[in-house]
Amino acid sequence: MTGTATVPATSLARQYRAVRHASAWLAEPMTVEDQVAQSMPDASPVKWHLAHTTWFFETFVLKPALPDYRSVNDAFEHLFNSYYNAVGPQFSRPQRGLVTRPGVDAVREYRAHVDRWMDTLFERAAAGDAPLAEDVIAIGLHHEQQHQELIVTDFKHLLSFNPLRPVYRERQERQERQERQERQEPQERQERQERQERQERQERQEPQSGRAAERQAGFPGWVEHSGGLVEIGHAGDGFAYDNETPRHKVFLRPFRLASRLVTVGEYRAFMEDGGYERPEPWLSDGWATVQAQGWRAPLYWERHDGAWWQQTLTGFRQVDDAEPVCHVSFYEADAYARWAGARLASEAEWETVAAEAPINGNFVEDGNWHPAPPAPPASPAAGAPAQIYGDVWEWTQSPYTSYPGYRAPEGAIGEYNAKFMCNQMVLRGGSCATPRSHIRASYRNFFPPSARWQFAGIRLASDAG
Amino acid sequence: MTGTATVPATSLARQYRAVRHASAWLAEPMTVEDQVAQSMPDASPVKWHLAHTTWFFETFVLKPALPDYRSVNDAFEHLFNSYYNAVGPQFSRPQRGLVTRPGVDAVREYRAHVDRWMDTLFERAAAGDAPLAEDVIAIGLHHEQQHQELIVTDFKHLLSFNPLRPVYRERQERQERQERQERQEPQERQERQERQERQERQERQEPQSGRAAERQAGFPGWVEHSGGLVEIGHAGDGFAYDNETPRHKVFLRPFRLASRLVTVGEYRAFMEDGGYERPEPWLSDGWATVQAQGWRAPLYWERHDGAWWQQTLTGFRQVDDAEPVCHVSFYEADAYARWAGARLASEAEWETVAAEAPINGNFVEDGNWHPAPPAPPASPAAGAPAQIYGDVWEWTQSPYTSYPGYRAPEGAIGEYNAKFMCNQMVLRGGSCATPRSHIRASYRNFFPPSARWQFAGIRLASDAG
Amino acid sequence: MTGTATVPATSLARQYRAVRHASAWLAEPMTVEDQVAQSMPDASPVKWHLAHTTWFFETFVLKPALPDYRSVNDAFEHLFNSYYNAVGPQFSRPQRGLVTRPGVDAVREYRAHVDRWMDTLFERAAAGDAPLAEDVIAIGLHHEQQHQELIVTDFKHLLSFNPLRPVYRERQERQERQERQERQEPQERQERQERQERQERQERQEPQSGRAAERQAGFPGWVEHSGGLVEIGHAGDGFAYDNETPRHKVFLRPFRLASRLVTVGEYRAFMEDGGYERPEPWLSDGWATVQAQGWRAPLYWERHDGAWWQQTLTGFRQVDDAEPVCHVSFYEADAYARWAGARLASEAEWETVAAEAPINGNFVEDGNWHPAPPAPPASPAAGAPAQIYGDVWEWTQSPYTSYPGYRAPEGAIGEYNAKFMCNQMVLRGGSCATPRSHIRASYRNFFPPSARWQFAGIRLASDAG
Amino acid sequence: MTGTATVPATSLARQYRAVRHASAWLAEPMTVEDQVAQSMPDASPVKWHLAHTTWFFETFVLKPALPDYRSVNDAFEHLFNSYYNAVGPQFSRPQRGLVTRPGVDAVREYRAHVDRWMDTLFERAAAGDAPLAEDVIAIGLHHEQQHQELIVTDFKHLLSFNPLRPVYRERQERQERQERQERQEPQERQERQERQERQERQERQEPQSGRAAERQAGFPGWVEHSGGLVEIGHAGDGFAYDNETPRHKVFLRPFRLASRLVTVGEYRAFMEDGGYERPEPWLSDGWATVQAQGWRAPLYWERHDGAWWQQTLTGFRQVDDAEPVCHVSFYEADAYARWAGARLASEAEWETVAAEAPINGNFVEDGNWHPAPPAPPASPAAGAPAQIYGDVWEWTQSPYTSYPGYRAPEGAIGEYNAKFMCNQMVLRGGSCATPRSHIRASYRNFFPPSARWQFAGIRLASDAG
Repeated sequence: MTGTATVPATSLARQYRAVRHASAWLAEPMTVEDQVAQSMPDASPVKWHLAHTTWFFETFVLKPALPDYRSVNDAFEHLFNSYYNAVGPQFSRPQRGLVTRPGVDAVREYRAHVDRWMDTLFERAAAGDAPLAEDVIAIGLHHEQQHQELIVTDFKHLLSFNPLRPVYRERQERQERQERQERQEPQERQERQERQERQERQERQEPQSGRAAERQAGFPGWVEHSGGLVEIGHAGDGFAYDNETPRHKVFLRPFRLASRLVTVGEYRAFMEDGGYERPEPWLSDGWATVQAQGWRAPLYWERHDGAWWQQTLTGFRQVDDAEPVCHVSFYEADAYARWAGARLASEAEWETVAAEAPINGNFVEDGNWHPAPPAPPASPAAGAPAQIYGDVWEWTQSPYTSYPGYRAPEGAIGEYNAKFMCNQMVLRGGSCATPRSHIRASYRNFFPPSARWQFAGIRLASDAG
Repeated sequence: MTGTATVPATSLARQYRAVRHASAWLAEPMTVEDQVAQSMPDASPVKWHLAHTTWFFETFVLKPALPDYRSVNDAFEHLFNSYYNAVGPQFSRPQRGLVTRPGVDAVREYRAHVDRWMDTLFERAAAGDAPLAEDVIAIGLHHEQQHQELIVTDFKHLLSFNPLRPVYRERQERQERQERQERQEPQERQERQERQERQERQERQEPQSGRAAERQAGFPGWVEHSGGLVEIGHAGDGFAYDNETPRHKVFLRPFRLASRLVTVGEYRAFMEDGGYERPEPWLSDGWATVQAQGWRAPLYWERHDGAWWQQTLTGFRQVDDAEPVCHVSFYEADAYARWAGARLASEAEWETVAAEAPINGNFVEDGNWHPAPPAPPASPAAGAPAQIYGDVWEWTQSPYTSYPGYRAPEGAIGEYNAKFMCNQMVLRGGSCATPRSHIRASYRNFFPPSARWQFAGIRLASDAG
Repeated sequence: MTGTATVPATSLARQYRAVRHASAWLAEPMTVEDQVAQSMPDASPVKWHLAHTTWFFETFVLKPALPDYRSVNDAFEHLFNSYYNAVGPQFSRPQRGLVTRPGVDAVREYRAHVDRWMDTLFERAAAGDAPLAEDVIAIGLHHEQQHQELIVTDFKHLLSFNPLRPVYRERQERQERQERQERQEPQERQERQERQERQERQERQEPQSGRAAERQAGFPGWVEHSGGLVEIGHAGDGFAYDNETPRHKVFLRPFRLASRLVTVGEYRAFMEDGGYERPEPWLSDGWATVQAQGWRAPLYWERHDGAWWQQTLTGFRQVDDAEPVCHVSFYEADAYARWAGARLASEAEWETVAAEAPINGNFVEDGNWHPAPPAPPASPAAGAPAQIYGDVWEWTQSPYTSYPGYRAPEGAIGEYNAKFMCNQMVLRGGSCATPRSHIRASYRNFFPPSARWQFAGIRLASDAG
Repeated sequence: MTGTATVPATSLARQYRAVRHASAWLAEPMTVEDQVAQSMPDASPVKWHLAHTTWFFETFVLKPALPDYRSVNDAFEHLFNSYYNAVGPQFSRPQRGLVTRPGVDAVREYRAHVDRWMDTLFERAAAGDAPLAEDVIAIGLHHEQQHQELIVTDFKHLLSFNPLRPVYRERQERQERQERQERQEPQERQERQERQERQERQERQEPQSGRAAERQAGFPGWVEHSGGLVEIGHAGDGFAYDNETPRHKVFLRPFRLASRLVTVGEYRAFMEDGGYERPEPWLSDGWATVQAQGWRAPLYWERHDGAWWQQTLTGFRQVDDAEPVCHVSFYEADAYARWAGARLASEAEWETVAAEAPINGNFVEDGNWHPAPPAPPASPAAGAPAQIYGDVWEWTQSPYTSYPGYRAPEGAIGEYNAKFMCNQMVLRGGSCATPRSHIRASYRNFFPPSARWQFAGIRLASDAG
């Protein structure tokens, strides 16, 4: 939580409106019914996300700044508090889906109410009549972007229980948009055509080539790093969460990072080699989870007539060998890497390489809501690995802990990150459900090692030299 | 399932429309959000109830009778099947609340679709162009009435998780309706005033009088029966479920049945005597449940500032000592009866007495959705116990088993009652959530002994002579 | 609990010593280790059974009668109390296997201590110097006999977790004993030879004959009863538990009882007909249990190389088609009966027939600890069904409830039976683990419908006339 | 697993006999019954520990080296395999306490059998007739020492369920031994007297002084370190597990390590300040565990008449404010540190300081089986912190992961450590249940953050400079 002090209020207000609008845009294709249900304790109703992100601004920005601010309902302080003990007790998380009132319209009105007051605050602040906690607003905006990703992932999880296989938005739209893009980017056209041909071949389900071949043949290459004493963590410019600080020195051995993500095809070779049936490649807790949960494939995959199909937000379809594998847990990512004779990267290794890469990729605004095959050049020659940002979060081998010298902020905001530094693994790089402006090289996402409902995938690493 | 053979199609069609309309009327005050959520595996979303009752007519009436019938969606056969293995596999019960599509509007359209086809069927049958399975339609109507009661009880359970304490319908309406009634029934007015005064006294929380006094003083009397060889079970006229047959002989010892239901005031005396703190009056499984669930009062009761409050469908208010106690499990009913030096009635005892009583009382159409104090005369002198029908289901001491000579019907309809004849207790008499035309002396309701979310209460019995 | 008032003290003392000795005899083949472990919360360590039965006499006989009685350890009052709330709090049942001290020797000494004091009591009572609560002692002796059966069944359950398949006592001994018997009963010899031949045939696993044939061909017949108003319950002579009283009238329809128990061969036909794979014959709770527990056969059965084997107390061996099927739950008994086109008997039906049969059969003293095929004549002609007593407890269709007019005794002894009258089913007739002197026609055993570790089997019944 | 190549066979044989004998010595005060029971899935019966450590030598040493080796029972390969998938399937861990046969004597004979064959192996190897896998034997010996610690901790856990509060060995013996020591070390006598006086004061339960005072007054000081690029991990001499390798560089910031362990008195101040009642100092998972488990004090503490008592292996007695606090989870250690304005050390910090300290302290051979107050000088002046080794394992803030460049050994031995590198925290320094020769500066113990049954305590650390 550093650094936004120089952003002028007007720019911040613009950002505020853009981020708030993006949440509403994501909820647009959802029915009222869609926004109420909660599919598991780890997920929340979309309606709740829309209210809770609003609660954040009300609680941490408006109430402290504006003495005349009035809430639409005092009970919301309790109802929409996620986990801030310093604010007060929280409504039971697994029962969020049972609160049918306030309904979707009332939540929309709650959002409008807070947005109006935020406008008031921006105006008064510009006039010098109110304090503007710009850093807290910045946190609030990034907080809302995190929940935008959860709106997408939680809704995908909810839809997975529906035997009618509803779609979020039709693929149609996506193809049209792609075609629009392609008119501007003609070199992509051929690549797309090749992909279609490949998929057609695959749909005829040609037998996989042998294991060793499979594991090596298609592998595009590594990006090498010589290691040594490096620095990671937030460097001081722009927004960052507290958990990215302080910037600090880490000593690295020489290492290599894969030039692209592990694909569905590669992961299928692991599956066909008995990946889910033999304990060897697995961590002890991982194997126990495989057995207890009956995992046989990534989440959302189903076997039909000898072929693997998957639920996506744009419809139910066969898996595509060229796409990055997705919806795997840390346990699966780690087991795959061991089976492949490699390992996952540490977060220091990942960040050291990612800090050199431009922030572009397949993000939530692109409307794919699904990872995509890497662009053709895949440029390992160029030294920069592909797909570093967007597509899928990349599991690292690093447990989520505090950086040396870390201090949690005072007050309720200090609960944002610090108290979760146990039993979780760090993921890096953002996904196809992440807003583009939300990600950066030092960004640390974290989930328990068994979590699969996020868009999380695998990049291999290994020791070098 | 006997007896409807002589009802003419037109009368049956009228009944059909009336019952179907009643379901819609019950859902009227609910928002779309209200109709989606499922508060526990034993309860279902209102939307599901509305669809499943429709599915019953589609599956058991329309499909067999009309070759040209087309469903709005073939997947509904699976989605809205509750537990009929003979029809096919069923969608997972605890996940009914996760199926957000079809939504409320689509379910309404499904109902309209089936209703239109039922009209077609009635017409064709009148013209002799289609067979009319009148007995199956009769079951379907009683089936829908059962679900009407569940709509009320499941929705009450759902609302209980909402800290904003929403109401189903305002009490206002109820009082207005009462006042209308009272203009026609002036003798009730005084009684109502007395009740208000009593409640005001009670709200000042005067200390309860001593235990023995409490238990005896207010008790209005018993209805005696000399026992002997009696007959129970459905006698042959009108509709009955299979589980009410065959009518058969039972030998009874002389017994007494309380002239009215146990009241909140009486039950509070049990609570204040340590009813929930000492194992003595409890069955072993009952006491284990009290401990495991932390029960300290009936369901929906809360302690605030030294007084007991309760959630009702018309609002959150203090408990009323004059009302029948409600939302107790069989375990609590049984423990209360033992504490009070009495017992619960067997279902044969209950039915023998109830067969002589007129079917009137406080039913779902009366719009109270809450049990009411007995009418002033309470008429024990007259020999007929009060509150036999309506208000609250009365737990009996009888486990739910088949009657001697019982045979389950062939086919899927045979699953309706027979396969549940284990681990459940019989309740009798209907409740304030039961449609008036649904109940009769031989009617056997059944729930597990720990169930509390139904409108279930207590009537005492004891050996006589 | 009635009736022992006229037994003279000396006879009672003899009974006391005989019953106490029988417990020690059952534990004789067990190692110290065997007597400590507890295989599930429903079962208890053998050491605990030996101590708890001793505690019963100490608590309910010695302490009230002898002011100078001193316990070996005051903590035993708490430690060995099973469920008597009136005596005080109880040590946690699922943790009985964690109390390694007092050890086996100390429990043996505890037994000797109480036995010495009981001798003192018998002497003083004979001299008129102490009161002798003969009815409580009688309960204590029957109580210990019940635990003798549990020693056998709990130990069998414990051994089932040991992959080394230890035996309780060698079959050798049993065969020798049989041979001794056969010298006195030559007519049995041929039957035994036939059984061996049959088993040898079976071990070659000849294919079962078709289902219908299987179900009818071997079936030996029914015992008919004309029904009417009968009396059941304890009649007044000899010992009985309170739950067998009062004797009372029940009206029965005409019925038939199978002339022998259902055999392993018959039950295998049910299994081969998909008994465990199709929901049709099952109660709803039964089918849910089959699915949740993965039941595919009776408890202790295992499939090896295409044949069914079973663990017995005398060793691991193939199942014998001629033996009564055993270790089935009520759910399985009920499903089998429905599949076979019959039903289970009510306890009133069973008792009415059993009251005419002599009390003999295969009991714990016979040293088989396993049910045996019926004796050759099987005498359906004679009107008396075979195997009514001993071999296996017979599940009835009757839930365990109080008899009309039942009153639980005052005080702690009142907890013996009354508080379990819910969620259990009645079993009748005793088993191969029951002491012969423990059983009678009016005896009511009870277990939850899912319990399988008792020697419980199936006798068919059906409506007649 | 490095380094033992130069140890001559005779020395290794001596070590073998010493370690094997130590296991038997620990089991000596236990009854047969004591050695059978299993108090939770995480703990094992003592009998199992004695057999499994023997299995290790049989499986990994004798079978590969001696073609004529014969096991006493082939089933032991399955029965006593803990978690080595490469060896074969394992007997179900939570059911180890149900295997009553082989009994204690048979396990003793199994040990003797393997010991005799190990003698044979040592002899043949000396004669050049057999290969001697010295490194595997060294692992086997350290493996057995780990299980010696578990024998102590698992048995303490088992005894905690016994309401008779049995002791492992009488304190008497310990005091006698102390007195013997004190005759040689007179300067300790006064300190001991002071401790007794302090305890007597404490038993009168004088009110604690205020929080701040409590937290600072008694605190003896810090050991400072200037940080920088250090090396940790096994350096190459002597035995080490694979998980301590490779030695590698870590960059540290300046830090301070407390000069002694946190005491009971200090921890009580945390408790009295609402430590277990307020969420602030806790990690989110920690607070959830506190709530779910109802933790109010360290494991084995009980409140009686306003004072805290604790179960120890030498008896039940009041807690001693001067002793190190023990049997706390990582969650409690972390929360205490945060409350105290400090933090836990990283394992790199800890090892950097510990590498300078001599390996002495309170170990299992000392016969205290309980942590002891620090020796009087406590020598913070000397620069070396007290109690680094022995007394209690010290929770670090480091999740248990692989060191950079780590490679798990090939084969079954590779399962020893590597597959547990997830969801566990590193502990350092050994405890009063650790054999003295088992510990070293680079030793990494690991347990889940909620584990409390190990002798685990707290040393504070903080950032410096």
